[in-house]
Amino acid sequence: MPNRPSLTPLIAALPSTVPFVGPEAQERTRSKPFRARIGANESSFGPSPRVIARMADVARDMWMYCDPDNHDLKAAAAIHLGVRPDNIVVGEGIDGLLGLLVRMYVSPGDAVVTSLGAYPTFNFHVAGAGGRLVAVPYDNDRENLSGLLDAVRRENARLVYLSNPDNPMGSWWEADEIEHFIAALPETTMLVLDEAYGELGPASALPAIDANRANVVHMRTFSKAYGLAGLRCGFAVGEAEVIRSFEKIRNHYGVSRMAQIAGLEALADQAYLGQVVAKVDAGRQRIASIAMANGLKPLPSATNFVAMDCGADGAFALKVLQGLLARDVFIRKPMAPGLDRCIRISVGLDHELDTFAEELPGALAAARDG
Amino acid sequence: MPNRPSLTPLIAALPSTVPFVGPEAQERTRSKPFRARIGANESSFGPSPRVIARMADVARDMWMYCDPDNHDLKAAAAIHLGVRPDNIVVGEGIDGLLGLLVRMYVSPGDAVVTSLGAYPTFNFHVAGAGGRLVAVPYDNDRENLSGLLDAVRRENARLVYLSNPDNPMGSWWEADEIEHFIAALPETTMLVLDEAYGELGPASALPAIDANRANVVHMRTFSKAYGLAGLRCGFAVGEAEVIRSFEKIRNHYGVSRMAQIAGLEALADQAYLGQVVAKVDAGRQRIASIAMANGLKPLPSATNFVAMDCGADGAFALKVLQGLLARDVFIRKPMAPGLDRCIRISVGLDHELDTFAEELPGALAAARDG
Repeated sequence: MPNRPSLTPLIAALPSTVPFVGPEAQERTRSKPFRARIGANESSFGPSPRVIARMADVARDMWMYCDPDNHDLKAAAAIHLGVRPDNIVVGEGIDGLLGLLVRMYVSPGDAVVTSLGAYPTFNFHVAGAGGRLVAVPYDNDRENLSGLLDAVRRENARLVYLSNPDNPMGSWWEADEIEHFIAALPETTMLVLDEAYGELGPASALPAIDANRANVVHMRTFSKAYGLAGLRCGFAVGEAEVIRSFEKIRNHYGVSRMAQIAGLEALADQAYLGQVVAKVDAGRQRIASIAMANGLKPLPSATNFVAMDCGADGAFALKVLQGLLARDVFIRKPMAPGLDRCIRISVGLDHELDTFAEELPGALAAARDG
Repeated sequence: MPNRPSLTPLIAALPSTVPFVGPEAQERTRSKPFRARIGANESSFGPSPRVIARMADVARDMWMYCDPDNHDLKAAAAIHLGVRPDNIVVGEGIDGLLGLLVRMYVSPGDAVVTSLGAYPTFNFHVAGAGGRLVAVPYDNDRENLSGLLDAVRRENARLVYLSNPDNPMGSWWEADEIEHFIAALPETTMLVLDEAYGELGPASALPAIDANRANVVHMRTFSKAYGLAGLRCGFAVGEAEVIRSFEKIRNHYGVSRMAQIAGLEALADQAYLGQVVAKVDAGRQRIASIAMANGLKPLPSATNFVAMDCGADGAFALKVLQGLLARDVFIRKPMAPGLDRCIRISVGLDHELDTFAEELPGALAAARDG
């Protein structure tokens, strides 16, 4: 007999190891700060000055719980996206919404399809629901649409995850390709279309939102282009009945009042968003130039980061990454076979990209020597 | 054959109706604001001025994700509570942590014990995990410890929920009574000890935290005495192995960076907390006086609200509540049989209690007439 409460069999079987090491944890281990924080695809340009001012104004109001309906933010997002408020659910970032969506549709043993090397937090939530993950390799550094479709049909998948534009490779499909993918999908399979980087790529990469389609949920966030990763706020957009089902299990008071207010102000300042998009584009070009100046091959990107091919295997790219970390430059890299030849550099401030440019040659030389 | 993705059987069976109506939703329906917001047990005194200043200072840093380890906040909370950091997990308020704990320990069909009329959000999470809720009536307006224990043994419950001090009645048990309850609990049953109001009652009501005991989790929050309900931040305190299990399913980047920083500053300003506790005590006395002046019976309270017996049945108390809402005073009331004879008034600012004092006689008269 046990002498303590037993975890459910599902939870007991999950690994205790945690793959989510943040830059702060690395700084604690190193006992010194990074000089460049260009590894988590954050927006170093920060939120809009209007948003910053608004946050300061409302700080004293944080004794009040949030509006559990997220009424005002949903109303503004609905106008922004050309849908109705009942097509939108607001959550604690896309991460939180992915967790809910997985619990809504995945019973233990159900198949879920994703790409090998795609978003690990989605996989974490699938594991937490007891789902059976089926991973399809990337094809030419893009998520393999026909491969994903084959896997969905073969496995009778409940969910299929697709990020467009893609993390960690920065690649994308044009809207018409995504629309063909959606049209070919079984009506009983839900597409989780993660558009976290949607504002940062070509508009032609974003398929129209069809609010009558019951098997597509678009995920959007304030964490990337809007520069509010620290507030945890995102939304899911889909057919009203699908969206209504989130009400059954979501944490109704989960989105902070600060996030609700900041998100509303951020949506209202589209001029600032335009400036960020321009800065991100310039930053991508600069990162690509730095890569080429060092003999590395930058991959095209529709996001706020650039993956670059280090020209050898995963072990080599890992050494380059480690060399950059040792030189106070926080970056990350893809880990899946094939993708792992790359390192991934987020667009940062000019001085951060200066630091990256200064330190990359040394890191490369050390990787070649070591 | 379905022509849309099917919810899991567990989720499909959950009700779509949502019991969480916030004051903002009521204001939208009424088309005018409340003059007194004294219904959600928020702290109208707000967060510490130091916390407000700190939030304003760091608003511009919100482009950075939070530290997923909550390292600094856990370290400070550990010192504050006399435990180790690995005895603490930080979450998106107690609500978020309750959801995780339920998923960790409750499989579909498992019994969970609570009090009839206790925290509905806990019940919501139990339903979301497919648990079988067993509710024990209050006894003399307190949670019935021996009744809960009997139900735990009879049902072989996985979890038992107890709030001390209690919401919605404001009552409490002294620490030694809680400790006897813990000692009598089966080792395999987890006690969820919700101490959200812990700072606001007598210190003698808080049992010592035994970090070696595997079947008790204490829940604490920044939402009540610390005045930060809008930021969503709380923590669970327990044995290290129990706490480690949260890592398996929690949203690692779920707590906002703003909440981490504000929480840290709030813990550091215990002098302000002391001022709030004194104001809450004065407010409770004022509310009790208002009740007695109107012939109602205030219940003793160890929280930031006072339940008052309206001297008749639930239908009458509901009319009193409706009368107050109609007079622009936002309050709530217990709904369970026996408790429902009461209305519940949160401590508010002086002008809010003035408004309550002005409007209560009219609401009572209308209830008696109607």
